[in-house]
Amino acid sequence: MNVLVINCGSSSLKFQLINSDTEEVLAKGLCERIGIDGRLTYQPAGGEKEKTDLAMPTHEEAIQYVINALTNEKTGVVKSLDEIGAVGHRVVHGGEKFASSAIITEEMKKAVEECNELAPLHNPANLIGIAACEKLMPGTPMVGVFDTAFHQTMPQKAYMYGLPYEYYEKYKVRRYGFHGTSHSFVSKRAAEILGVPYDQTKTIVCHLGNGSSVSAVLNGKSVDTSMGLTPLEGLVMGTRSGDIDPAILEFIAKKENLDIDGLMDVVNKKSGVYGLSGNLSSDFRDLWDAADAGNEKAKVALEVFAYRVAKYVGAYVAAMNGVDNIVFTAGIGENDHGVRELVLGYLGYLGIEIDEEANNTRGQEIMISKPGSKVNVLVIPTNEELAIARETVALLK
Amino acid sequence: MNVLVINCGSSSLKFQLINSDTEEVLAKGLCERIGIDGRLTYQPAGGEKEKTDLAMPTHEEAIQYVINALTNEKTGVVKSLDEIGAVGHRVVHGGEKFASSAIITEEMKKAVEECNELAPLHNPANLIGIAACEKLMPGTPMVGVFDTAFHQTMPQKAYMYGLPYEYYEKYKVRRYGFHGTSHSFVSKRAAEILGVPYDQTKTIVCHLGNGSSVSAVLNGKSVDTSMGLTPLEGLVMGTRSGDIDPAILEFIAKKENLDIDGLMDVVNKKSGVYGLSGNLSSDFRDLWDAADAGNEKAKVALEVFAYRVAKYVGAYVAAMNGVDNIVFTAGIGENDHGVRELVLGYLGYLGIEIDEEANNTRGQEIMISKPGSKVNVLVIPTNEELAIARETVALLK
Repeated sequence: MNVLVINCGSSSLKFQLINSDTEEVLAKGLCERIGIDGRLTYQPAGGEKEKTDLAMPTHEEAIQYVINALTNEKTGVVKSLDEIGAVGHRVVHGGEKFASSAIITEEMKKAVEECNELAPLHNPANLIGIAACEKLMPGTPMVGVFDTAFHQTMPQKAYMYGLPYEYYEKYKVRRYGFHGTSHSFVSKRAAEILGVPYDQTKTIVCHLGNGSSVSAVLNGKSVDTSMGLTPLEGLVMGTRSGDIDPAILEFIAKKENLDIDGLMDVVNKKSGVYGLSGNLSSDFRDLWDAADAGNEKAKVALEVFAYRVAKYVGAYVAAMNGVDNIVFTAGIGENDHGVRELVLGYLGYLGIEIDEEANNTRGQEIMISKPGSKVNVLVIPTNEELAIARETVALLK
Repeated sequence: MNVLVINCGSSSLKFQLINSDTEEVLAKGLCERIGIDGRLTYQPAGGEKEKTDLAMPTHEEAIQYVINALTNEKTGVVKSLDEIGAVGHRVVHGGEKFASSAIITEEMKKAVEECNELAPLHNPANLIGIAACEKLMPGTPMVGVFDTAFHQTMPQKAYMYGLPYEYYEKYKVRRYGFHGTSHSFVSKRAAEILGVPYDQTKTIVCHLGNGSSVSAVLNGKSVDTSMGLTPLEGLVMGTRSGDIDPAILEFIAKKENLDIDGLMDVVNKKSGVYGLSGNLSSDFRDLWDAADAGNEKAKVALEVFAYRVAKYVGAYVAAMNGVDNIVFTAGIGENDHGVRELVLGYLGYLGIEIDEEANNTRGQEIMISKPGSKVNVLVIPTNEELAIARETVALLK
């Protein structure tokens, strides 16, 4: 079956058409600047990337252009919509309502809508994408795959904050975690590669990208993760602060005369390695170049980033009372051997031995620990689109 | 030499008179409700505790009553002020200005005042206590001992937040850490007990009281600690939230219609195990009683508390790439064997073996790991007053 995977933001829409039998990507692309002017990027497998400016007042036009491109006589990859068997939608926040993916129905959409206030920037956009697809592809079964679902297995001791209990009861304030599709995909893949039963292994996944999170996966179930109610908590990220003393917000509000929205703007968009490096860059290649050229702030940003990852790994080893596998994934995790080296430098006490040559590779599935290492360390490229396609097919079977 | 140790709050003042040669406490007590009405509690060594209502419009009257009590013919312990050789003042925040204790001079007080905005509730009160003592005990040498000083050895990767670098440059926003006198005292004592050189050992101190913090002490130097710019960060405490997703503040502000001061009130005074237990209590004895009687929220509060301690320990093992000693101290750390058991339950992977009988003791200096344990686990009662007296004498020598 061909599955159209949609990841819909407020003004953008990423897509891939995946043959779920061969797991081949038939075509992929991106609609940008929806509601502003509009541009479609489209690339069939093995073909050229095309960029076309196209008016996209709403997501409906965007989806229509995607369909047109996929069925186009020259560069299309299917003859008609009939060859698209299902649509898999990424949905950011499923709250406590969704512990797994779900077939999209009126009731399901209502439940997603009820989670909107937990992800006010993301869920409404996801729902708009779903509505547009429903209109243009009536009768095609659709599935929602949640970023939060994999982490719904966390025990209460991991998801409760030290806050008045009534905030949990009234508003569902708790840790949810994100990147669940990725944490699930790579932890499962690690077990496959190692030939061990997924439900009998302790894995820590370091999903390090522009947004970063660490998870503890015990016997195939997420038992803790560094992101929280929102994707702000946890590691220092590209532009997000991650963990800070909450009282800093009060201190900065008074110093900089900022209200709560202004503060959130700072900690979400002007912080992280970008802020730490003195607004140099949130791109780790820039940071390494600058650090190599003697820029002290860039060096500190890299050190802080890696140190925090190592501390989360250490914390999750305690959470699971041990660890069998550590996996690096996502943009930085897959490609930045320097960051991996910094992180692993802290973890010698676990009996980890690293194969430097293997670590000095980029973007490939590879074991980077030596055969004698007490903990397996792997780099596994994540593939959230494939994971969504698989979930979609599994649910529709 | 007899050293008067003063811990001065905004409306209270604790004191001990310590003979620094024998390290004996000659007398101790407390002034409460200063500026309201006033009450003195006084107890000479081996004597009865006396409580007296006395008008204390300012800290000056309070100190005068302390001096009167100490030199009183019947229950006093010294004949005159001449027998008090020095005063040691606890000072909460020394910012980056004080990496050790300091003799109190005009210049030193100015430097403390410059740290006031980092601890607006504490430093001004500490300075008031110093001024009152200077007036009533002219010529007596005085020393300030800082809660933050011991942690000034932290490397930049540990003290920098993932925030715009300019906040550090302009406002000195960074991790400072607190309870330094205690972390220093018990980590040093652990090395003494074990007969190992303090500067060649990796120790993690869990200071668990109404305020709680964990520190990583590498070769005698603090390299990380869980409290941050303020004592709000880190562990879940009696009424303080500790670590939360910073975005929760925005979420709660909107839900509960609170401004930043209202939010700070909630996370400092209505959170922690008190909030988690549904406003049951911040006293761990109450929580255990309730949990034993089947109260689920009390149980969750205890589990969350211990789980967070274990995660910090795990993180600091990574920070130091190993650990030799783990020490429990302060009210809960010294007395609550149930909490210690919960925490240590996570740490079997470190090769820790616990002597249950030893763990089932309260408030005494004791090794609670078995002889074969790969990490030494100790309970060491903290004694901040004695530590301040020692620091005071050392500096005046």
